[in-house]
Amino acid sequence: MTEVIASRDNERVKRACKLRDSGARRAAEGRFLAEGLRLCTDLAQRLPPEEVYCTQKLLDAHPELAALGGRHFLVSDAVAAKLSDTKAPQGLFCVFPRRTKTLEAVRGGGRYVCLEHIQDPANVGALLRSAAAFGFAGAVLCGNCADPFSPKAARASMGTLAKVDIIFADETGQALAAFKACGIPSFAAALQNSVPLERVDTQRLPGAALLIGNEGNGLLPGTVAAADKAVRIPMAAGVESLNAAVAGGVLLWHFREV
Amino acid sequence: MTEVIASRDNERVKRACKLRDSGARRAAEGRFLAEGLRLCTDLAQRLPPEEVYCTQKLLDAHPELAALGGRHFLVSDAVAAKLSDTKAPQGLFCVFPRRTKTLEAVRGGGRYVCLEHIQDPANVGALLRSAAAFGFAGAVLCGNCADPFSPKAARASMGTLAKVDIIFADETGQALAAFKACGIPSFAAALQNSVPLERVDTQRLPGAALLIGNEGNGLLPGTVAAADKAVRIPMAAGVESLNAAVAGGVLLWHFREV
Repeated sequence: MTEVIASRDNERVKRACKLRDSGARRAAEGRFLAEGLRLCTDLAQRLPPEEVYCTQKLLDAHPELAALGGRHFLVSDAVAAKLSDTKAPQGLFCVFPRRTKTLEAVRGGGRYVCLEHIQDPANVGALLRSAAAFGFAGAVLCGNCADPFSPKAARASMGTLAKVDIIFADETGQALAAFKACGIPSFAAALQNSVPLERVDTQRLPGAALLIGNEGNGLLPGTVAAADKAVRIPMAAGVESLNAAVAGGVLLWHFREV
Repeated sequence: MTEVIASRDNERVKRACKLRDSGARRAAEGRFLAEGLRLCTDLAQRLPPEEVYCTQKLLDAHPELAALGGRHFLVSDAVAAKLSDTKAPQGLFCVFPRRTKTLEAVRGGGRYVCLEHIQDPANVGALLRSAAAFGFAGAVLCGNCADPFSPKAARASMGTLAKVDIIFADETGQALAAFKACGIPSFAAALQNSVPLERVDTQRLPGAALLIGNEGNGLLPGTVAAADKAVRIPMAAGVESLNAAVAGGVLLWHFREV
């Protein structure tokens, strides 16, 4: 039976808002809040929703939402506005389990993208989306990356959040050790002292780990030095850089497995 | 001699704000307003600034700004806040000539990207940035694309706005006719009835025109039908699309000339 929530001060609503706003809270509870019809239904194909918050209006327009798993709540427009991270909420919010893995999940032969200090949640989300599109097994988030389970990152990932393994590592060195132990060669994206991407033959690689660094500063020098090879996207004279998500997309495309 | 503007109601400031806010105004005056140290100085390498608005604080930190061309104005923080499109203005704004070309500028052997109804200014800017990075001669904006000279698009293009020819066309058909007349083969990005990107050999192409459509709906069916070939980025099962700027970046990379 569906419960009704009309008060913005409802304790459950407050808890959901905390999941939306706090990465620490998401990590502690092992859950995250997703918003929007497309995102929630995409995620629900692979992750069981624990809680579903929906307005009557949206439920009338999309009766199939009643079949989503988990505990269901009908919310007023005011409550939807409170739960929302956007200006014009569609009226659907789901609490999903925040499934993450450790470096022990790295498997020989797989392709992984390893993000180091990527700070823009939209970039993290877009990189996960590209990784899923190009057949990568997982994404390793090292150091101070934006939380992939934040509203902005989840929106940018377009539901692919549930399609690649999300692995957290304190330091990139730990990830590099895991790749090495599995016989996976590592490639650091670096503008200097690197080989142009098209000269890297990816056809016969025993898996690949692609390392991508911070939007402004790139990878830490120690990370580049520790990787098996440094690669760059060659660019026309006078152009110094690409949008971070675009650069990552081109790199992931080159190392694709599809 | 540098003039000082301390009033937010200054007529010159009001005119600059209109250039910032209105595409029609930019087109009518043939000028646009750019904001920020990096963007303005990048653009100034190729475009002569007509007017420079700068705070004393920024000028003290960057005395080299005094060497920028055009008429200079010292502005108060309040005026800078009024001119700004961002929450934390750096304190530098320049009015540049809005240089555009017509389809007559298309040259045989060149590589062009042709955008159809791309509506997000950040996507238009990122696509221009990728086009410049990958050696494209120009970008043709067809139909209702976001204005590349808007603050958001200019920011996303990172100064590459002045590095590729910006060509406007009312309809994509006119652009296709211009490419055909110059012997440039055209490639439509389309998910259906298309060949995977890696099967298109770009080594011996006599130039190329890459057509990219609206973020949500792709190219118009008539555009795909009229192009010489339809291409797609192959993706893993269960992933339907990429971020528009990322997809464009991968396509531009494949057709690069660098």
